[in-house]
Amino acid sequence: MSVAPVLARIDTDLDAALARLFDLLRIPSISTDPAYRADCARAADWLVADLAAMGFDASTRPTPGHPMVVAHHDGPGPHVLFYGHYDVQPVDPLELWDRDPFDPQIEDSPAGKVIRGRGTSDDKGQLMTFIEACRAWIAETGSLPCKVTIFLEGEEESGSPSLVPYMKENAAELTADIALICDTTLYDSRVPAITTQLRGLLGEEITVTGPSKDLHSGMFGGLAMNPARVLARIVAALHDDEGRVTVPGFYDGVPEISPELRAQWDGLGFDAAGFLGGVGLADPAGETGRSGLEMLWSRPTCEVNGIWAGYTGAGFKTVLPAQAHAKISFRLVGTQDPHKLRESFRDYVSAMVPADCSIAFKGHGNSPASVMQTSHPAFEKSRQALTEEWGVEAAFVGSGGSIPVAGYFKTHLGMDTALIGFGRDDDQIHSPNEKYDLESFRRGARSWARILGEMGA
Amino acid sequence: MSVAPVLARIDTDLDAALARLFDLLRIPSISTDPAYRADCARAADWLVADLAAMGFDASTRPTPGHPMVVAHHDGPGPHVLFYGHYDVQPVDPLELWDRDPFDPQIEDSPAGKVIRGRGTSDDKGQLMTFIEACRAWIAETGSLPCKVTIFLEGEEESGSPSLVPYMKENAAELTADIALICDTTLYDSRVPAITTQLRGLLGEEITVTGPSKDLHSGMFGGLAMNPARVLARIVAALHDDEGRVTVPGFYDGVPEISPELRAQWDGLGFDAAGFLGGVGLADPAGETGRSGLEMLWSRPTCEVNGIWAGYTGAGFKTVLPAQAHAKISFRLVGTQDPHKLRESFRDYVSAMVPADCSIAFKGHGNSPASVMQTSHPAFEKSRQALTEEWGVEAAFVGSGGSIPVAGYFKTHLGMDTALIGFGRDDDQIHSPNEKYDLESFRRGARSWARILGEMGA
Repeated sequence: MSVAPVLARIDTDLDAALARLFDLLRIPSISTDPAYRADCARAADWLVADLAAMGFDASTRPTPGHPMVVAHHDGPGPHVLFYGHYDVQPVDPLELWDRDPFDPQIEDSPAGKVIRGRGTSDDKGQLMTFIEACRAWIAETGSLPCKVTIFLEGEEESGSPSLVPYMKENAAELTADIALICDTTLYDSRVPAITTQLRGLLGEEITVTGPSKDLHSGMFGGLAMNPARVLARIVAALHDDEGRVTVPGFYDGVPEISPELRAQWDGLGFDAAGFLGGVGLADPAGETGRSGLEMLWSRPTCEVNGIWAGYTGAGFKTVLPAQAHAKISFRLVGTQDPHKLRESFRDYVSAMVPADCSIAFKGHGNSPASVMQTSHPAFEKSRQALTEEWGVEAAFVGSGGSIPVAGYFKTHLGMDTALIGFGRDDDQIHSPNEKYDLESFRRGARSWARILGEMGA
Repeated sequence: MSVAPVLARIDTDLDAALARLFDLLRIPSISTDPAYRADCARAADWLVADLAAMGFDASTRPTPGHPMVVAHHDGPGPHVLFYGHYDVQPVDPLELWDRDPFDPQIEDSPAGKVIRGRGTSDDKGQLMTFIEACRAWIAETGSLPCKVTIFLEGEEESGSPSLVPYMKENAAELTADIALICDTTLYDSRVPAITTQLRGLLGEEITVTGPSKDLHSGMFGGLAMNPARVLARIVAALHDDEGRVTVPGFYDGVPEISPELRAQWDGLGFDAAGFLGGVGLADPAGETGRSGLEMLWSRPTCEVNGIWAGYTGAGFKTVLPAQAHAKISFRLVGTQDPHKLRESFRDYVSAMVPADCSIAFKGHGNSPASVMQTSHPAFEKSRQALTEEWGVEAAFVGSGGSIPVAGYFKTHLGMDTALIGFGRDDDQIHSPNEKYDLESFRRGARSWARILGEMGA
């Protein structure tokens, strides 16, 4: 069966595909905020209805958090599992959006048409490229070229607490020959990429408590310890002057990249100044002596994602706050152990707290880094399909982000994962004015159609 | 004219006085938040109506911010100016209040009955003690024992931006023989106090900007500078390990207290551990080698009153924030110059900002410290009146708080100020569950009645 008519159908059906995507984008499925719980359920139901209408055996599956979507479709070839997530990031600061984040629209941009809205790139627009590829195959041929299971979660942006338990309980149903994930970027706007290594993630929230209540800084200031001052000292101490993370044992399991990979990455001609220039910066801020791609793909980090204490409204309030808080995350590489690191971090930070203060920790998500076995035939087939669609050799690249599920698939289901995505570095995911290029959406769907064809060939 | 019937009238009129105070407390006159602008105006109008009904020539006076209240009443003796403020602090965190902050009520407490609500102690309850004293004198004798001007502002909790310009433009109308302020505390629940030295205040808000927008910490983390990390390093660097403030020149103009004052303060038997124990702390956190009262009354401080950056809501968001903010204040003593210190702080902090970040400053209020000339006869008359009312020798004390207006009265109107207040250290001003002891309110009014009588004698 030639893929050509499937590709043609994707092109002629584009407006209808966009209308479907917009329906999904309008649902504010912010998983981290309990206020949007019903919206998350609504997004899952919408996907089940869409997949069922295409002939998938589709259903939502309850979890202690937001539901999973699981859908099966028979086919002649190998069994592929496609994973995506229907939840999205919060939208604050809302005032920095040029429009309602949940009222998507097509806009013109210097680089071509873009779809603007929360979740367009991360991950609703990307997951719909795979669903539209399946729709075109079924519409054109009555079936799919391989057996497909679609597995979508609604907690990816909030640490995926239900994912591993669900995966373990349903291992037989979810295990396939290869996993496919569409949640990454092109290398650049012309070069398609298969991501073969991902950083892991460890999230920690710390609360330093000093006095039993907020105090007047005139009445108590100078005598009473201020927990915001303690917290600032902790956060400031997490990096040394060379940009290295100071948590004891932090670099255990952090490998140097191989000379071969270094040569391939050097060949990509990454322009750190240009990359940073796009967001108003100029100087690489990571460890002294590391290249830009190393800082992004193969070196671990420690970041403050949030910090707050005391009065943060308009004007001034001379309060000495009772508590100070920070959300801190680590990007992990190699074989860094998130559990060991969490313990080490907690011990290290606790030792910095003076006798008059206490500290409490709340663990958020954690996942080790992933490095794929690219000898699996799916990688070469995908590379070939992508190269044909984009007209330029597809690259094997690293990613600074964390897609923990790829590691879980390996650990719990024994599956390798081909991470193939069509996002771009300027998509502003997790930021105001998120977008997804219309061309990414169209050629993404075409790419998956070709990959499914190659897999089934 | 004996003061006895005036005191008796205060006691018999107590319930009506409380009803008046509660009317004023129910107006949420939060000056720092523009959302409460109309409420501030309403509080001013309420006071004018009350004073006019007593026979004062009273009116509100417009300013670029919240209105002033000015009221005059003739009398035979010297001319006293009473100052207070009708604005209150914000109430957040609201969830820590046991009841609506603006629905005051009388509650039982282990130490006796208290009036609970925002502004009960700071400063509506205190300013009404003076007004009730005037009311009793007028009701009982038809007049006041001295000439009284009442001057109330509505911006004390937000840096008093209109105060000095208004004072300069209306110097002739506002200048009296002595200023009286009721915005301080008893030394303890038994010992009345006249505060003779006050710390000054300097407020600064800093914003560190890194990337031009919030970034995904996976995509950019490790390469892009995080302004929250920069801010934490700045805040952490403001104190050394001995608790001293590191801003260059900070200790210029900070005097050692005289041996006489040290002896008097030592005689007060201040219990630092007990004072801190009341708010869940134990260890004095100020400069190594200083006594507790020095830390509170005669040493300058630097405090973080607020800090915020990135995602601070429920759950976790792996954002690398574009900006990080802090509200920082300094308590000043001796002849520390707030203007010089502001410049020194800005230079010092700017030098800590890496090339890829920028920093912006917003100045909030500033005032130098005040030390009163206690040789003015009003101090001895007030001490005598207080000693008679409370049955224990009144003390001359310092205060860690800042009441900038006392310095302005000296600088711009040439008046000394007797600071006499009836608050207590556990009043939780600026905190949830603020209260004012019913006995402070009753004996405060009686104290002012006696002081007015002594002044006019």
